[in-house]
Amino acid sequence: MTIENKFPGKDITIEDLEHKFPLVAKKNPAHKSKFSIAGVEFGGDLIPVFAGPNMVESRELILDVANHVKRAGAHFLRGGAFKPLTFPYRSTKYNESREMGIEWLREAREKVGIPVITEVMEEKYIPLIAEMADIIQIGSRNMQNFPFLTACAKTGKPIMLKRHYGASLRDWLGAAEYILVEGNERVILCERGVAVPHTHRATSRFLLDLQVVPAAQEITHLPVVVDPSHATFWRPWVAPMALAGIAAGADGMMIEVHPDPKNAAVDPLQPIDYSEFELLVKRMDVVAKAVGRRVL
Amino acid sequence: MTIENKFPGKDITIEDLEHKFPLVAKKNPAHKSKFSIAGVEFGGDLIPVFAGPNMVESRELILDVANHVKRAGAHFLRGGAFKPLTFPYRSTKYNESREMGIEWLREAREKVGIPVITEVMEEKYIPLIAEMADIIQIGSRNMQNFPFLTACAKTGKPIMLKRHYGASLRDWLGAAEYILVEGNERVILCERGVAVPHTHRATSRFLLDLQVVPAAQEITHLPVVVDPSHATFWRPWVAPMALAGIAAGADGMMIEVHPDPKNAAVDPLQPIDYSEFELLVKRMDVVAKAVGRRVL
Amino acid sequence: MTIENKFPGKDITIEDLEHKFPLVAKKNPAHKSKFSIAGVEFGGDLIPVFAGPNMVESRELILDVANHVKRAGAHFLRGGAFKPLTFPYRSTKYNESREMGIEWLREAREKVGIPVITEVMEEKYIPLIAEMADIIQIGSRNMQNFPFLTACAKTGKPIMLKRHYGASLRDWLGAAEYILVEGNERVILCERGVAVPHTHRATSRFLLDLQVVPAAQEITHLPVVVDPSHATFWRPWVAPMALAGIAAGADGMMIEVHPDPKNAAVDPLQPIDYSEFELLVKRMDVVAKAVGRRVL
Amino acid sequence: MTIENKFPGKDITIEDLEHKFPLVAKKNPAHKSKFSIAGVEFGGDLIPVFAGPNMVESRELILDVANHVKRAGAHFLRGGAFKPLTFPYRSTKYNESREMGIEWLREAREKVGIPVITEVMEEKYIPLIAEMADIIQIGSRNMQNFPFLTACAKTGKPIMLKRHYGASLRDWLGAAEYILVEGNERVILCERGVAVPHTHRATSRFLLDLQVVPAAQEITHLPVVVDPSHATFWRPWVAPMALAGIAAGADGMMIEVHPDPKNAAVDPLQPIDYSEFELLVKRMDVVAKAVGRRVL
Repeated sequence: MTIENKFPGKDITIEDLEHKFPLVAKKNPAHKSKFSIAGVEFGGDLIPVFAGPNMVESRELILDVANHVKRAGAHFLRGGAFKPLTFPYRSTKYNESREMGIEWLREAREKVGIPVITEVMEEKYIPLIAEMADIIQIGSRNMQNFPFLTACAKTGKPIMLKRHYGASLRDWLGAAEYILVEGNERVILCERGVAVPHTHRATSRFLLDLQVVPAAQEITHLPVVVDPSHATFWRPWVAPMALAGIAAGADGMMIEVHPDPKNAAVDPLQPIDYSEFELLVKRMDVVAKAVGRRVL
Repeated sequence: MTIENKFPGKDITIEDLEHKFPLVAKKNPAHKSKFSIAGVEFGGDLIPVFAGPNMVESRELILDVANHVKRAGAHFLRGGAFKPLTFPYRSTKYNESREMGIEWLREAREKVGIPVITEVMEEKYIPLIAEMADIIQIGSRNMQNFPFLTACAKTGKPIMLKRHYGASLRDWLGAAEYILVEGNERVILCERGVAVPHTHRATSRFLLDLQVVPAAQEITHLPVVVDPSHATFWRPWVAPMALAGIAAGADGMMIEVHPDPKNAAVDPLQPIDYSEFELLVKRMDVVAKAVGRRVL
Repeated sequence: MTIENKFPGKDITIEDLEHKFPLVAKKNPAHKSKFSIAGVEFGGDLIPVFAGPNMVESRELILDVANHVKRAGAHFLRGGAFKPLTFPYRSTKYNESREMGIEWLREAREKVGIPVITEVMEEKYIPLIAEMADIIQIGSRNMQNFPFLTACAKTGKPIMLKRHYGASLRDWLGAAEYILVEGNERVILCERGVAVPHTHRATSRFLLDLQVVPAAQEITHLPVVVDPSHATFWRPWVAPMALAGIAAGADGMMIEVHPDPKNAAVDPLQPIDYSEFELLVKRMDVVAKAVGRRVL
Repeated sequence: MTIENKFPGKDITIEDLEHKFPLVAKKNPAHKSKFSIAGVEFGGDLIPVFAGPNMVESRELILDVANHVKRAGAHFLRGGAFKPLTFPYRSTKYNESREMGIEWLREAREKVGIPVITEVMEEKYIPLIAEMADIIQIGSRNMQNFPFLTACAKTGKPIMLKRHYGASLRDWLGAAEYILVEGNERVILCERGVAVPHTHRATSRFLLDLQVVPAAQEITHLPVVVDPSHATFWRPWVAPMALAGIAAGADGMMIEVHPDPKNAAVDPLQPIDYSEFELLVKRMDVVAKAVGRRVL
């Protein structure tokens, strides 16, 4: 009887570190990437906060959110002008703002003075978004769209690579290697929930995998950001999981914020409002300081 | 205490059938799509078989395999000229044959007289592949790459949509709707294994989800194909799971075949060889007849 | 950086075969246990069928079902007099028949002349059930209740060990070893569905793991039975998954049968009725013959 | 086409709160159980810490650990005299200390003056353990061994109910209801890792589910404890996950501590040593204070 003790695609081996993702792998246990994006330091004491609505619904909304989250302490404004939807039909409410949304983000970025992260979904929009955004976000559904990763990498812009909800750590680091191999070193990993046998609400589909924070940091020098909003899909759990993420060692925190969560264009169960966000930033800073870091 | 009994993204509801994937959904319990591709009927008594190597390694290989699988009863030749790999580095052995491989497939198709299915991974190659192949395969990692689905759909060519290893049935049918909404009705679904908490070998990462065959067929009129080779990743399990797929009601079967499995360029643990394939086709036909269908 | 390549509790290794479950492990690839229970052969050509209601609701019900399933070809009558429920409250309808149910099963066994399998849930009832039943069933929730396994094993009665819905193949074989080590060799494994990230209906919680059939048979000589009723929890999927189980190589099939499924005391979505069962037995026999075995 | 929108066994509904686990369910959002065990308050500001070795290997070991963890701030000594093992064979090293181990725990409890929690695995040992221990631990593999839950509940002793690695929140709360229905109200829930499709090391089998902390606390008034040692199975991840658990709102923390982790009788990859524990307690206290609670 033969039992093969190799396990392709399942767990990380020494060979992976050397041959599969050598650029992503740490050179030594203390190795940690530090880089600056729009003047904000990643990989150091600071835990940068990305905040904003799921979608750039209107010019007014995004300007208002930009003002509020900046004042509350956020380092980056997030918001999608392009948004992957599971089904091809969109109600009026769900309409993507697309090129117009990118212009609204540009205006918010300039007027409010807050750098911007936004998702790109298609190769043809890469130049448009790369020209405006400070960080290009690659969504979880594109995590293993390898030619797309390469195309984004070639812009030279910093990239946040969201983990697919079904991907292993090995898959995720392999995808990041596709970006680094192009000479683009400012890569940020973002955990946003994984599909598991049992979630805890009928409305919740994912589980925030905080164990991947120390697990990834043991292997890679890249910063690891946590997104508790998409993972929990449930407002009351966002704050405890954000604080837990900070305590687990996250290198950044992405929070969905909307002035009127119940009337958000998409996923109205998950954003927190301005006052909740203000409070959360303060609480995150206290927890961050308890673990030797800072949010503010 | 509020408990929301809606479950976005988790399970299929009546609303989904009517508003999320109305084109994919059956109109009535007996509704089943029938269509013909290269003279092969889908959705009827016949269970078409797709066979061939993981990769189009050389002209000789693909011609040889085409001859053998056709003689054994396969209806389509499969083989990848473009191949998504988890990591950006390829040994010489793993080199994709790319445009050259497409030409070799074309030659095999014409000389041997067997229609071809092959994967397209990038928008820029869609015209090349749509022009040669009888069916365009969209790989699991691109299942929710929505602009790409749309671009493939617009070619008008039949499309096989592989299920992502982390995707729900609802996700998968939603992705198929993106193709049908473009007026392209020849869509084939393909189950190829899902990630689960416990697989059964260190080398096996997925579990073939045969329950999805009756589950999908209860909801959609589209044919459902099963790929036991990628799912099991282990040669000895391919035959039992192929037979089980036939018995479960699969509308097609995709089998990886290589003249010399141990020396296959990729995934050498999963292909079966010519004589195993010949035997399997016969056994599949016997089981198919036991459930009122046929392979030969 | 250290990466430990051992994987305790995850996958099966050569050491496991030799040191963890040597009695359960095959001695050579052809090794397969054959034994007889109440005159029914296990591990040979025959695929014995276990049929009956979830619960022994009344004397009349169990006598009626015993008659019907025997006539249709079932080899064993199944039915629970004791039933683990997730919550401590039972409506009148759900009342266990307990000792009385055991007497009703005894009467059905004798009058109808069909051997019986029933679950034991508590050590104190082992003697009562071991004295009446032909096979003792250990439910999935007790799969790793090791002292209980030992106590059941010591009766010397044949035992069906259901796999826990969260257990790996390694866990399951380890549990079986606890029975064999007591000198009890008539152990039957039963797969009844595993918890996975995505099931296919709001009412379905498990996925029938048919891949475990060849996977278990590659490692162990013990017969592997499949229970599609509990796994699918949905009547229309029972027949296709039963047929698939046969084709995958199952050594037995457990089917929930109730004269009036909608009014079954528990789990009314999963049993099939008498005429569906009759038809299914015939279809299973046809598929069994297609793979060189038989049900009738 | 019928789609049933009920989901038995999958997610928690309003009916569950009222009819399935009314004693476990909160009466109002602010409802939280407070009770005292051996003078240690649960459900208040304090986050009690349970520390000790996996197994009570020897009298010397347990006395030494009791002294050290008490001095470092632990509130309870943990240690197993009885230990469920996946396989029936134990090397000398793995021998359970059983009744003798219970006596050693009693001695440590009295001499060092630290209350004790230990697992009971069999009904016949309940009186012995209930008489000595301050808290009875029910292991994850017995979580749904309902008669056993009832028997433990009837002792009137406080009970810690570990979640099975495959169980949903609903399963777990249902199991807890079996204890409360016996009039035993001092029930502590303990999360210890769940089986998921992708863990992050070959040696790690589980993922610590911290999302269940706010999820459980939203539904139940019972305290929720976190065990990062068994979940991570990897020493370097214990501290970050313990801190994360505190930040997520855990009502208690269970940490495996051994004077010489590499030579621990079982699971040598997971315990931390004395100095690591001392430091961790201090760090947990700092994080606890950052979220308005305390460990010391």
